[in-house]
Amino acid sequence: MSAAGLFVTFEGIDGSGKSTQARMLADHLRQSGHDVLLTREPGGSPGAEDIRALVLEGEPDRWSAETELLLFTAARRDHLERTINPALAEGKIVICDRFADSTRVYQGVSRGNLRSQVDKLHNLMIGREPDLTLLIDMDPGAGLERALSRGTGEERFESFGTGLQERMRQGFLDLAGEFPDRITIVDGTGGIEDVAADIQRIATDRLT
Amino acid sequence: MSAAGLFVTFEGIDGSGKSTQARMLADHLRQSGHDVLLTREPGGSPGAEDIRALVLEGEPDRWSAETELLLFTAARRDHLERTINPALAEGKIVICDRFADSTRVYQGVSRGNLRSQVDKLHNLMIGREPDLTLLIDMDPGAGLERALSRGTGEERFESFGTGLQERMRQGFLDLAGEFPDRITIVDGTGGIEDVAADIQRIATDRLT
Repeated sequence: MSAAGLFVTFEGIDGSGKSTQARMLADHLRQSGHDVLLTREPGGSPGAEDIRALVLEGEPDRWSAETELLLFTAARRDHLERTINPALAEGKIVICDRFADSTRVYQGVSRGNLRSQVDKLHNLMIGREPDLTLLIDMDPGAGLERALSRGTGEERFESFGTGLQERMRQGFLDLAGEFPDRITIVDGTGGIEDVAADIQRIATDRLT
Repeated sequence: MSAAGLFVTFEGIDGSGKSTQARMLADHLRQSGHDVLLTREPGGSPGAEDIRALVLEGEPDRWSAETELLLFTAARRDHLERTINPALAEGKIVICDRFADSTRVYQGVSRGNLRSQVDKLHNLMIGREPDLTLLIDMDPGAGLERALSRGTGEERFESFGTGLQERMRQGFLDLAGEFPDRITIVDGTGGIEDVAADIQRIATDRLT
């Protein structure tokens, strides 16, 4: 692990178990003596949480895909400045549930064909990539079932059905092909403890 | 006037009288039989007004210059999509109190040295320039006095003192040099009715 901390993100379709796995990895690393900050997007800092609320509340067509992209990028910039970068500077391991790859897939593929704009905006205003991204891959049918059973109320991104989930799964897998050094695909279909063991092994390899 | 409407913006330092002059020009053109939409930034559409509130409320250091730039750009995108472009498509004259030139000067010059980022972000996510921009130029001392006497409560951009106002005045004048075909400088130091008459003449010339 470098002196400047390690930035780890979890990505995957809704219901893939990434939030649970992010928490389990944070717990495991803390028990191993590491200083860990667990955070999530959209949100993760007071300002970014306010922007998150603005994006997720209201009618589904309240914002165009482009405006939504700008709002999420504003939230990410605030999250990076106020939460992620200070923790990395203190040498912490930062584990973040969703980051720019989610935007590449959701705003870049699912809500339009904005990938080129997503990339340019990221390079212009964010610039930072994670050191390691764990992509929890699983069958969209199983993922959707999990997501709907949670009933979190934030249904905007979770009520599109399996057709969209199939496209998003493929979008994430395509990203893993684009960024092979950064993104590691984890099979999410096994039991929670089995998946967690895989992830612990990958993260530990990276830390030593 | 083209079939696709005319997009007119007013720019200038706080207290320059641009909001008053924008309203007076709208009244004058309506009395001349034109269909006019008067709007303002930041804000101008329901979503953009919500973003405006998020930016202007709270502590002055709540947002970095970069995050603020992203939020204002999100508000502008919404304003353009939901208010300005539909009115222009109906052939209306749209008069807007502040637009992208304010961002070029405030976020590009006053809050940091972000002009290059401001321009790239504008080209990427906004792209539209006004057909005519009226820059109300006046002495910052007189302008600040007017702004403070209004007591609008939105003091974040209005409490920096005359040093900043001097730099902003120069920033606007520099922009007029950059975009000579679009930006017309109006001397704002005369009486309100005299300034209004100048503006009516410039706008009428443009419409015929």
